[in-house]
Amino acid sequence: MGKGGDGGEENMAAWLVSINTLKIQPFKLPSVGPHQVRVRMKAVGICGSDVHYLKAMRCAHFIVKEPMVIGHECAGLIEEVGSEVKSLVVGDRVALEPGISCGRCRHCKGGRYNLCVDMKFFATPPVHGSLANQVVHPADLCFKLPDDVSLEEGAMCEPLSVGVHACRRANVGPETNVLIMGAGPIGLVTMLAARAFGAPRIIIVDVDEYRLSVAKSLGADDFVKVSANIQDLDDEVNQIQKIMGSDIDTAFDCVGFSKTMSTALNSTRLGGKVCLVGMGHDQMTVPLTSAAAREVDIVSVFRYKDTWPLCIEFLRSGKIDVKPLITHRFGFSQEEVEEAFEVSARGGKAIKVMFNL
Amino acid sequence: MGKGGDGGEENMAAWLVSINTLKIQPFKLPSVGPHQVRVRMKAVGICGSDVHYLKAMRCAHFIVKEPMVIGHECAGLIEEVGSEVKSLVVGDRVALEPGISCGRCRHCKGGRYNLCVDMKFFATPPVHGSLANQVVHPADLCFKLPDDVSLEEGAMCEPLSVGVHACRRANVGPETNVLIMGAGPIGLVTMLAARAFGAPRIIIVDVDEYRLSVAKSLGADDFVKVSANIQDLDDEVNQIQKIMGSDIDTAFDCVGFSKTMSTALNSTRLGGKVCLVGMGHDQMTVPLTSAAAREVDIVSVFRYKDTWPLCIEFLRSGKIDVKPLITHRFGFSQEEVEEAFEVSARGGKAIKVMFNL
Amino acid sequence: MGKGGDGGEENMAAWLVSINTLKIQPFKLPSVGPHQVRVRMKAVGICGSDVHYLKAMRCAHFIVKEPMVIGHECAGLIEEVGSEVKSLVVGDRVALEPGISCGRCRHCKGGRYNLCVDMKFFATPPVHGSLANQVVHPADLCFKLPDDVSLEEGAMCEPLSVGVHACRRANVGPETNVLIMGAGPIGLVTMLAARAFGAPRIIIVDVDEYRLSVAKSLGADDFVKVSANIQDLDDEVNQIQKIMGSDIDTAFDCVGFSKTMSTALNSTRLGGKVCLVGMGHDQMTVPLTSAAAREVDIVSVFRYKDTWPLCIEFLRSGKIDVKPLITHRFGFSQEEVEEAFEVSARGGKAIKVMFNL
Amino acid sequence: MGKGGDGGEENMAAWLVSINTLKIQPFKLPSVGPHQVRVRMKAVGICGSDVHYLKAMRCAHFIVKEPMVIGHECAGLIEEVGSEVKSLVVGDRVALEPGISCGRCRHCKGGRYNLCVDMKFFATPPVHGSLANQVVHPADLCFKLPDDVSLEEGAMCEPLSVGVHACRRANVGPETNVLIMGAGPIGLVTMLAARAFGAPRIIIVDVDEYRLSVAKSLGADDFVKVSANIQDLDDEVNQIQKIMGSDIDTAFDCVGFSKTMSTALNSTRLGGKVCLVGMGHDQMTVPLTSAAAREVDIVSVFRYKDTWPLCIEFLRSGKIDVKPLITHRFGFSQEEVEEAFEVSARGGKAIKVMFNL
Repeated sequence: MGKGGDGGEENMAAWLVSINTLKIQPFKLPSVGPHQVRVRMKAVGICGSDVHYLKAMRCAHFIVKEPMVIGHECAGLIEEVGSEVKSLVVGDRVALEPGISCGRCRHCKGGRYNLCVDMKFFATPPVHGSLANQVVHPADLCFKLPDDVSLEEGAMCEPLSVGVHACRRANVGPETNVLIMGAGPIGLVTMLAARAFGAPRIIIVDVDEYRLSVAKSLGADDFVKVSANIQDLDDEVNQIQKIMGSDIDTAFDCVGFSKTMSTALNSTRLGGKVCLVGMGHDQMTVPLTSAAAREVDIVSVFRYKDTWPLCIEFLRSGKIDVKPLITHRFGFSQEEVEEAFEVSARGGKAIKVMFNL
Repeated sequence: MGKGGDGGEENMAAWLVSINTLKIQPFKLPSVGPHQVRVRMKAVGICGSDVHYLKAMRCAHFIVKEPMVIGHECAGLIEEVGSEVKSLVVGDRVALEPGISCGRCRHCKGGRYNLCVDMKFFATPPVHGSLANQVVHPADLCFKLPDDVSLEEGAMCEPLSVGVHACRRANVGPETNVLIMGAGPIGLVTMLAARAFGAPRIIIVDVDEYRLSVAKSLGADDFVKVSANIQDLDDEVNQIQKIMGSDIDTAFDCVGFSKTMSTALNSTRLGGKVCLVGMGHDQMTVPLTSAAAREVDIVSVFRYKDTWPLCIEFLRSGKIDVKPLITHRFGFSQEEVEEAFEVSARGGKAIKVMFNL
Repeated sequence: MGKGGDGGEENMAAWLVSINTLKIQPFKLPSVGPHQVRVRMKAVGICGSDVHYLKAMRCAHFIVKEPMVIGHECAGLIEEVGSEVKSLVVGDRVALEPGISCGRCRHCKGGRYNLCVDMKFFATPPVHGSLANQVVHPADLCFKLPDDVSLEEGAMCEPLSVGVHACRRANVGPETNVLIMGAGPIGLVTMLAARAFGAPRIIIVDVDEYRLSVAKSLGADDFVKVSANIQDLDDEVNQIQKIMGSDIDTAFDCVGFSKTMSTALNSTRLGGKVCLVGMGHDQMTVPLTSAAAREVDIVSVFRYKDTWPLCIEFLRSGKIDVKPLITHRFGFSQEEVEEAFEVSARGGKAIKVMFNL
Repeated sequence: MGKGGDGGEENMAAWLVSINTLKIQPFKLPSVGPHQVRVRMKAVGICGSDVHYLKAMRCAHFIVKEPMVIGHECAGLIEEVGSEVKSLVVGDRVALEPGISCGRCRHCKGGRYNLCVDMKFFATPPVHGSLANQVVHPADLCFKLPDDVSLEEGAMCEPLSVGVHACRRANVGPETNVLIMGAGPIGLVTMLAARAFGAPRIIIVDVDEYRLSVAKSLGADDFVKVSANIQDLDDEVNQIQKIMGSDIDTAFDCVGFSKTMSTALNSTRLGGKVCLVGMGHDQMTVPLTSAAAREVDIVSVFRYKDTWPLCIEFLRSGKIDVKPLITHRFGFSQEEVEEAFEVSARGGKAIKVMFNL
């Protein structure tokens, strides 16, 4: 690898989304600042948003205007540390939190830095992501992995963080019987997190029998297969409540459609909570007044904050096992990268597609 | 007044809703239990739900099947106290909290007795209300009024409690800039409560210019007149935010329609709260996903709990003045009662219609 | 068994504390009210307060003036249910919560009924306890045991509730590294509860090596043996922090002496919590200012509230196993009862002494 | 003023504490970074800690080893803004928050940046303070003052922040009857803040009649003069409770001695809070067990966080008037500075001594 000017490193293989194609190209690394580290990437997962950027050049209101490195679920090895970095040394295995907040706005100061309006987040335009050989990142966003947590598991801290943040915001604990709407990747990490937070009973709901069977094998106590037809709502709510066998304290909607949210609202007990995790349709038609009459609150989540240490502790202690979620693995050649994205885009039996660099 | 058997008192004038008419009839009071008191009613307000029961024989899912005494906003004089009552004496002027909770369910034990599933609530079928000469009621639900708080003001503790409970649930304080959707009676009491909880700036929104002018005269900092047309939403949100001049921390939807709730959700800052107070349409079409992406939570309220002492303190200290809300007063004759309900049902310039017995 | 008048039952064997002796005597049961049940006692544990009442005729500021039935950790079989009781039937196996709150005071209404000033609590003078063949008790304070939770385990819900309430008040969860001062019965139930609430690492401290070894066998991650000498404080704090290996988020003082509380305060991280559980000396000399300069808060616990359902769930699921705490068992004869109290008073290897009736 | 190298400015008059004397000396300003501003000081107040540093060369465990500019209560005019600063322009009048936190530690990320272990705080050794003609400071710690808030009032945001942070941590609101132990500067700002947070009734306690009369004139509802003798404790608690006339929900100990803390603990209601604000003696002998038996929690405060916007809003709206606290004003000559510190050190009728530069 050649040296860049100003102490920066050239980064030989970063995958950029560009006009609906992926291409690899050399990429110049910035130099390492006093509070930063340089990390050699070893494991990077594909997220649904990466697929969106590739296929549609956008995700929600974020639009790709210039070629952008994608990827934000990642772990690697420390190769260089800045002059002020005391917590890490070269050779440390680390998982990376992808968002750099400003530290100056009311949200940062108030402890909700995930709401920072100046957030620089891997692979959210115009910020480059981490599907690259190396990245330079703030040291305080690189979390050392214990020996018994693998780099792949480290990369899984990112999707797992969504579930952990949701459980924190909904205050899940050993008295919270949990309903999960949706057995996709978000539903599964929320289920795993809810269990680790102590939820005594978890019921999961989906339209797809295979996904439900996977959820059961990963730890759901039971499941209910539902239709996509809104007219089945009342029957399904009854069935869900019956299978729970006691009050549903908190429901997580990990889909985000009118029907899933209506099911969540109507199933939840007096004084319970519904947490909207899935980003589905923006406009939803839902029974808000009857939910309000039962003081069912709706809490919502955007990304996560301060979740890596807890995720790593859950992985270390075995309270959460994310390995079964990694269903496909690929290398870093053009062919493998393209195939990996195809597999991820198809869905089906793929849960998490992981690159090993 | 004649004596009833078992120590009960006959109650000469209770107004019952019966087949869409109001009629007065003698009504036998139960005897006073050890923890109860007998109260001679002096001031009773008319609530929208009373009008609903009279006009439609129902309100939400509660249906009047037998003639039922209406009224639940009330204050009066203690005329008899039970053997175990220590906090009250004959002659005390009291405001009455209308709901008797079971004390045994999880909600009662958990401090959210407003969610009690065995609640017995004045004028919620089949429980009789308080538009009567006398009622027997638990002593702990009768709150002594200070000398400088009138009986009419005491009766106003009930509607005011809705606003107080909403402000408590939404955690309004001196750092909460407040938006109120709807300048009807619920919007007004929520506005008064928000001010008393310390809200530095309150903007109120309605479709009716007269109501807005009343709200302004009662203490709103400013107002925005809106249309009922959903297509004006974005413009109106901009206008509301501009007139607030700073972040909207909490929005109260005191109407409960798709448009009011959408306006509330879109106007509120990152990490803010929307509190649904008004019971409008059950099904609402609202932008939940974009609200979630800003971690705007939705908290909801059902009636109130433990609000009378605070309401009375607000009235005593002058932090809240409810007297301007009482726009019409009537006596207790057949003609006056009928006219009072007509005035209340018409709305218009009437805010609160009050009986003086 | 003879019938009492007014539907009451005679209760042939209740153990009363009377002038520092225990005696059995017939005892007339009240009749069963509409919301009450009659329970045949099957398992009753001895608490330190029972021993205090027997030896000193007092406990804290409560003084035994008349012969009083002792005992308040208990479980039994439903033998009769009141007319309004729907949740229980004859034959149900139940654990009993010993305190009957008034339901009318600010604390009851506010969800903190353990602070009720009119509390009637088993074996707190002048209220009789439960070391008797039968008791009449409110149905909502009798919690049905699942088939796989024994009556002895049911009786253990009472001491376990102290630990559960402490963990709730200190907000223990999967991010809370816990220090426990004191490996006596209270320390042990707090440790078991902290684990069940998800505490990842628990260190326990005592002056007694045997107690520490028991605590380790019951699940503590590690322990520190300390002296009773205040001059060892700084060294011991260093040792405790070193053995924890990371920040101590919450410390429970289950002893209540100046030294244990000082150790707890000085060991706890910036922004952490100390929870005072043990009732030791009233006046303590402690470094409050330096704790305040680290924003270490002190939360405190009195009895418990709403803990039985969670205790039973912990026992059912196996998250907590209380059986090893029951070190001695006795029958209900005069000799056995006397011996049981001697064993309990001696302490030593006895943790919990249990009667099987 | 001459230009320094690297774009830095020479600062002609900074007051340094040096071997128990104050001396003025030229002082070179750093250059203004992209997120920083240069402020010309206009108002600086003297804090007790400044006096400690001057007289004892230390305060708590902070020791002055090299000459250090003192002062941290300040406001001034923006004279230069960094390249990335968008919120401020030259000429803005600003109040300065004195502590610069690291933004990277768990406390900063968790929203409690006042606990940051790498805090750089004006006039806390070895960091220079603000009793200087100019300072360079982060823009996000400079808060623009509205036209109707003076620079002196701006400087008062610092001591006021202590009261505001205490009221936030103790959750003071319109339902909180407040007891304040100590009518010194900290007691007064806590009293003003408690009123602004809505406390309906505030009783203040001190040993000094003059201070109590000042507190009354500034808004206390009533006061109790006490002795320094611990044997008067019970009588004084009775007197305090009687004068409050209702439950004391929260007590602030703004002194920090065994007796003041004991009075606070014993006066507070079941389930109430005591907040330790004053930094008095480290070791206190206090009745912690009886407080715990009433579930009286102790919350503690260290400096403040995120308080300037609220302080400014309280000043702007008139909810708090700090002007009467400024009892003495001085210029910036050697003689005046020395006299100012003497006046502040003597105490007596001086509350706040302010420099106008």
